[in-house]
Amino acid sequence: MKAVVSDRGLTFAEDYPMPVPEPGEALVRVLLAGICRTDLEIVRGYKGFAGVLGHEFVGVVEPARGAASRVPARRPLDGRRVVGEINLACGRCDYCLRGMRNHCPRRRVLGILGKDGALAEYLTLPVENLHEVPDEVSDEEAVFTEPLAAAYRVPEQLSLQKTAGPGTKAAVLGDGKLGILAALALKERGLNPLLVGKHEEKLGIARAQGVRVSLLDAVRAERFFDVVVEATGSPRGLEVALFLIRPQGTVVLKSTVARPEALDLSPVVVDEVTVLGSRCGPFGPALTALARRLVNVRPLITDILPFGRIREAFQKAEGRDALTVLVDFR
Amino acid sequence: MKAVVSDRGLTFAEDYPMPVPEPGEALVRVLLAGICRTDLEIVRGYKGFAGVLGHEFVGVVEPARGAASRVPARRPLDGRRVVGEINLACGRCDYCLRGMRNHCPRRRVLGILGKDGALAEYLTLPVENLHEVPDEVSDEEAVFTEPLAAAYRVPEQLSLQKTAGPGTKAAVLGDGKLGILAALALKERGLNPLLVGKHEEKLGIARAQGVRVSLLDAVRAERFFDVVVEATGSPRGLEVALFLIRPQGTVVLKSTVARPEALDLSPVVVDEVTVLGSRCGPFGPALTALARRLVNVRPLITDILPFGRIREAFQKAEGRDALTVLVDFR
Repeated sequence: MKAVVSDRGLTFAEDYPMPVPEPGEALVRVLLAGICRTDLEIVRGYKGFAGVLGHEFVGVVEPARGAASRVPARRPLDGRRVVGEINLACGRCDYCLRGMRNHCPRRRVLGILGKDGALAEYLTLPVENLHEVPDEVSDEEAVFTEPLAAAYRVPEQLSLQKTAGPGTKAAVLGDGKLGILAALALKERGLNPLLVGKHEEKLGIARAQGVRVSLLDAVRAERFFDVVVEATGSPRGLEVALFLIRPQGTVVLKSTVARPEALDLSPVVVDEVTVLGSRCGPFGPALTALARRLVNVRPLITDILPFGRIREAFQKAEGRDALTVLVDFR
Repeated sequence: MKAVVSDRGLTFAEDYPMPVPEPGEALVRVLLAGICRTDLEIVRGYKGFAGVLGHEFVGVVEPARGAASRVPARRPLDGRRVVGEINLACGRCDYCLRGMRNHCPRRRVLGILGKDGALAEYLTLPVENLHEVPDEVSDEEAVFTEPLAAAYRVPEQLSLQKTAGPGTKAAVLGDGKLGILAALALKERGLNPLLVGKHEEKLGIARAQGVRVSLLDAVRAERFFDVVVEATGSPRGLEVALFLIRPQGTVVLKSTVARPEALDLSPVVVDEVTVLGSRCGPFGPALTALARRLVNVRPLITDILPFGRIREAFQKAEGRDALTVLVDFR
């Protein structure tokens, strides 16, 4: 099958072996898959992953076929359009039993850690990871479910910590895909965040959906915000977040970067700031937001290209102005 | 008066001007003052402070004398033995009105920021900052109130966050003064922390009070602890803490260091760790712990030297084996 393979560099295979579902897994025919910043970081060496890239997708569950598959013949998701959670947990360890499956120490992660990913014609995932896509959500929207879920992780964590309420002064740093989605998710959840970025055009996408926006250079709000979500993807983003956060405020850290940089963390101590790491999120609220049109992700699509133009797709994804480049396997 | 002055280097003055109490302040004759790691960092440039060093002390309130003082003539603390909170808040800003006086943006800090400190024969502090020392607490113990309060800030924050309970697996990194005190404070508050350090002798002080201890090299508990208190004073301490902390655990960050270093913070994001900055703490629990002999601070005294041997005192405080060097102004 066609597949984007990362293994000390990037290759575009035409004859990559078809994945074979393990017990409990479904075979999914990929319709659309997104190229994410994390994919580009992996190509640069982050996590040392070797295999098929990609973890943002929408696909269709292939009915189990004959003896080659060890999965029961008839399953409720057969033929359905699905999106999928990317963490494959062991289901038996302490973390799994406590409901922290995303933190299972033996987990594999689709296209990131020990599991071939979604930038291919087919993938496999445990059936329990799959969510059916409501009819009112298009393929082009559904492919945003995973990053939108990661965005909804922010209000989920803040609410668990009872850190945020209607009066909370919140900012989101970074006008990339995750920053825009985090601002939209926070707004949908009743906060009124300020999205801070460097690109007028990208900020405009959030502004068109009622989000307050500002160019970074224009922000003079030192120690002003109760909550700052750091989604810049840059090693310097935390420094800016620590400039904007008030004493005893909460910085939600979303960016993972391949290269560490020297950081002065003394403001964390002196101002007793909480830095809260944030990764994968709940698919339910994300799918609901898409189905009810609470969040419009379509303007985040930079381009949709077939696998035949995969090199061009990656070149576009690397571009400074790119938000989301989708690869079309339909 | 005699005073230890930091101003692009360290000088030991014999004729530093006596401080004059501002309205609401008391004049305090210093009995004992400690030399803290933070003092040594300040001499190296941290915070760019110029003035009398020192923020750990026990002293006696001098009765107000005549017209030179604008303070009322008779006050309840006159002649009493006191310790003092080091943050001088404005009392009028948003933070002060919300009870976050330690984070007042206009604050001065004794011996650290805009306010002459305690390594001198006399200091002044607002009366509201002073706490009377119970008779059963000796001078040598009372001088530990400030660092012990900073240690009690840790269980206070964990309990505010509902992060810790009797079953919590906790570790304290660093067998310096703050690390030992944090371990003792956590133990007194019902946790059973493991104190991790590099010095058998220092670890022994905590072990003698029932704290579990381990040399760093012997710790193989990767991703084991629910809570790790980072009190090493080293820029590399956070990295070790992130090795020991479990996913979704809480790292309490106590160390402020003058020089930033390159840090890989991706474990914070991937494991959704909470990093919680922690600075000054409540004097009440610290004084109570001293008065009721719940915590024994006396083994933490490396030496007590008169001001006449102040150079020797600073040399000792710089030593690798030093815990607390006290300067005697009695």
